[in-house]
Amino acid sequence: MKLTFSPASPFARKVRIAAIELGLIDKIEFVPTTVVPGQPNDEYSNLYPLKKLPALILDNGDVIVDSYVIVEYFDELAGGGKLIPASGALRWKVKSDHSLLQGMLDSMLLCRYEKMVRPQGLQWQAWSDDHWNRAWKGMAHFEKQPDMLSRPLDIAQIGLTCVLGYADFRFDEKMLERPSVKTSVPPPA
Amino acid sequence: MKLTFSPASPFARKVRIAAIELGLIDKIEFVPTTVVPGQPNDEYSNLYPLKKLPALILDNGDVIVDSYVIVEYFDELAGGGKLIPASGALRWKVKSDHSLLQGMLDSMLLCRYEKMVRPQGLQWQAWSDDHWNRAWKGMAHFEKQPDMLSRPLDIAQIGLTCVLGYADFRFDEKMLERPSVKTSVPPPA
Repeated sequence: MKLTFSPASPFARKVRIAAIELGLIDKIEFVPTTVVPGQPNDEYSNLYPLKKLPALILDNGDVIVDSYVIVEYFDELAGGGKLIPASGALRWKVKSDHSLLQGMLDSMLLCRYEKMVRPQGLQWQAWSDDHWNRAWKGMAHFEKQPDMLSRPLDIAQIGLTCVLGYADFRFDEKMLERPSVKTSVPPPA
Repeated sequence: MKLTFSPASPFARKVRIAAIELGLIDKIEFVPTTVVPGQPNDEYSNLYPLKKLPALILDNGDVIVDSYVIVEYFDELAGGGKLIPASGALRWKVKSDHSLLQGMLDSMLLCRYEKMVRPQGLQWQAWSDDHWNRAWKGMAHFEKQPDMLSRPLDIAQIGLTCVLGYADFRFDEKMLERPSVKTSVPPPA
């Protein structure tokens, strides 16, 4: 199977970490792909209309998106219940926490697009402030959870790692000990 | 349990449709909530840092987000495998299609915020065009799927209904001119 990705994409990174942790990394051919907001990429849009990274292309040609669904698919390939608890209250906590982290990444990317990609003079400060605030409130939410990193590895922890990595925060030592996290650290911007 | 919502939110609509279809609607207390991009709502942000609709508040105080995870939770409450196929290729198709539709809604909301919420003079046409294109390419993707509406009801079909409903609600004249949109409006549930 093939995975479209770029080294800087935090969503692709999440999938790469999951693939390493689940023992699937050697089954994936990585396809470097460039997507830029405001710039067409018709070839890629025909594959994935949202023009986002990553997308998984199965050997039969089926395409699976988005990053979370790809991780779920990998988890099932690996036997199930590995990175996403199979049942109980923890299942819903992990899934909900992951969605929050996904939305934090979305907001962080919107902040970046607003400041760095949108032409000068068209910035709207209240928009950046709003999305920055969402990411920060999310950080505060997870800071209050002492058990966040003491559980067995799950997709919410991987999501948090990618959020912190994207924010250029100092990585939690515990997560950087994992080879999957270390080898997928994004290159300098 | 309680669900934060607004009548205009396509994400809340998806959850409401699912709750009705799964026979759970009478167990939900609806909490009208107002969120506007660029405007703080600290009380709601403390509940849900992304300040999005909807959020599900369980009787024990646990909060489940986002709309897809809430539907998964409802599906499990209803016995499982109802709106999300429990296994097989259709499971991944439905999940992946739903994610695409979710992203189309995100792009449609970004278009609306750009045109209607962002202060005049700060619009960036290439941004609107890009996100408009994502939604349209997605529509074209589903138009090519003759079996999309002939399967038993699933979350992808509900997602498509909410995409088209939102397009009708917010982009009525422009979108309904297209035969593809007119002919692909889903039947009543």
